[in-house]
Amino acid sequence: MPEKKRKKYWVGFDLGGTKMLANIFDSDFKLAGRARKKTQSKNGAQSGLDRIAETIEGALAQTGLQKDQLAGIGLGIPGPLDPSRGLVIHTPNLGWRNFQLRKPLEDAFRCPVFVINDVDAGIYGEFRFGAAQGTRCAVGVFPGTGIGGGCVYEGRILTGRNRSCFEIGHIQIIPDGPLCGCGQRGCLEAVASRLAISASAASAVYRGEAPNLQAQAGTDLSNIRSGALADAIKAGDAVVEEIVRNGARWLGVGVVTLVNLLAPDVVVLGGGLVEAMPAIYVEEVTRVAQARVMAPFKDVFKIVVSQLGDDAVAKGAAAWAEACVDGK
Amino acid sequence: MPEKKRKKYWVGFDLGGTKMLANIFDSDFKLAGRARKKTQSKNGAQSGLDRIAETIEGALAQTGLQKDQLAGIGLGIPGPLDPSRGLVIHTPNLGWRNFQLRKPLEDAFRCPVFVINDVDAGIYGEFRFGAAQGTRCAVGVFPGTGIGGGCVYEGRILTGRNRSCFEIGHIQIIPDGPLCGCGQRGCLEAVASRLAISASAASAVYRGEAPNLQAQAGTDLSNIRSGALADAIKAGDAVVEEIVRNGARWLGVGVVTLVNLLAPDVVVLGGGLVEAMPAIYVEEVTRVAQARVMAPFKDVFKIVVSQLGDDAVAKGAAAWAEACVDGK
Repeated sequence: MPEKKRKKYWVGFDLGGTKMLANIFDSDFKLAGRARKKTQSKNGAQSGLDRIAETIEGALAQTGLQKDQLAGIGLGIPGPLDPSRGLVIHTPNLGWRNFQLRKPLEDAFRCPVFVINDVDAGIYGEFRFGAAQGTRCAVGVFPGTGIGGGCVYEGRILTGRNRSCFEIGHIQIIPDGPLCGCGQRGCLEAVASRLAISASAASAVYRGEAPNLQAQAGTDLSNIRSGALADAIKAGDAVVEEIVRNGARWLGVGVVTLVNLLAPDVVVLGGGLVEAMPAIYVEEVTRVAQARVMAPFKDVFKIVVSQLGDDAVAKGAAAWAEACVDGK
Repeated sequence: MPEKKRKKYWVGFDLGGTKMLANIFDSDFKLAGRARKKTQSKNGAQSGLDRIAETIEGALAQTGLQKDQLAGIGLGIPGPLDPSRGLVIHTPNLGWRNFQLRKPLEDAFRCPVFVINDVDAGIYGEFRFGAAQGTRCAVGVFPGTGIGGGCVYEGRILTGRNRSCFEIGHIQIIPDGPLCGCGQRGCLEAVASRLAISASAASAVYRGEAPNLQAQAGTDLSNIRSGALADAIKAGDAVVEEIVRNGARWLGVGVVTLVNLLAPDVVVLGGGLVEAMPAIYVEEVTRVAQARVMAPFKDVFKIVVSQLGDDAVAKGAAAWAEACVDGK
């Protein structure tokens, strides 16, 4: 099968806090195969690297492909990293620091490997295949446990020199506001992340104001996931709805800053909170942003929901590898 | 003189609220000649356009050059505009709206004309010839009457689709904070512009807390220019110094957001306030930014003062015209 042999395949990898996912795509970016593993981050970075390689091997085996059919591998990795050196600077969820990912994987798979921030991969996926196709400037805002961000400008991911950037969660939003996980005060993440919203919702439960959330999740922050918030709102917990809408409005204030700075064509909302409650997020963010952006930027941007969902990171990372290899 | 005839000259134009300036540069960007006129914005946009053309003609006459020796004209214009169509959308200081600048000037001077935001021209000038040379990402923050901003990323000015952007003055900095000239509340400009600082300083004079400023400028906001603030501080008005430092610290908070988003190599501070009090601005902005940016961005950026001063806009606009014509 010389024809098939020549065909280029791309690996897109999504490294999450609890699970890792390797997707293999053909040259048209149709899914050819996939494999998953638990991340087991507590075993450290070297073990993690071994598991990444095993997961890619597993996806190859499942697809019946050989290593030499791979044209490139793109890895979407949480936290600050250095795309130019393929270096993880720090993954807060995993606890890995200053860890070289590219070199060992290039040695193992004998193809170019690209390491990018997972949120950058997500918004690049939306740019290539989803809600941001055809845009000149697309900003991604993904509120979940934290709040990730990324920007694709004229087809390229905006990055810093030797590091990923676009840390939307750490826009300064309230002077001396609530403490953020980053150690500063008043970051967007401190008022609009799922953690911030869940903390307010847990307080409401404790005060007896959210009976449906109480029945389902109690006051344990680790129980109050985005789905639990959505279910409680559907069941009639008006206080929970107001807490979520309040968080969404803060997100809107952050979007005002982004629009006034970059005048994007589209702001793509994604992440756990948005996937669980897309209507609330689009409504509140659009309302705040349209009311508050500067006059020349009104009505020239759209607020939309991500289309690729769970696949965005892996597919975007694979497409970014293609763009880098092919010089797109 | 066929040799001289073939030489390329570039016009850089700086349209200000009170005066306009045309500089002519040779192909090495040495100044070959210049002319100035009062803007007289009250006579309207058509009159303004005529005066722009006359000023360029005046600079040509002063230099002894002919129109056909011009390779291109770059105009730095205040306020939102559309660089792709050469259209002024709105110049708040001048009151011109939806005004086509490029076409009539291309007809008059028979060379390519480029219209860019004046702050974009300023930071591009610093990138090409001043404090941001050799940088991958340079952000300009220019606090004066308002607060302008611009970003040169990998050699190109960041813009929106069909409009200039990077409106740093309208970053959301204090929720429901002081009213801003743009009609919103809590923008950076509302707490850190010269207007905001002068208003606080005038209050201090009124309360009898700033005797040196009182002797020099009184409580009339239009009298309290950046130089008057600097002089009062030198003369010992501690309250005025604290007011200026407070504004500079707010500017630092805005810089934190910019660094966390774009991870620039350099933040260039310029504009009237910084030119009058560079040490205070560099000190306070650096201190706030280094204390508050996310860990991966600490120590990888510099806060510096603009080097080109009054020449930045005209020289940057001329160099941008060259970059566009030569495809740099």
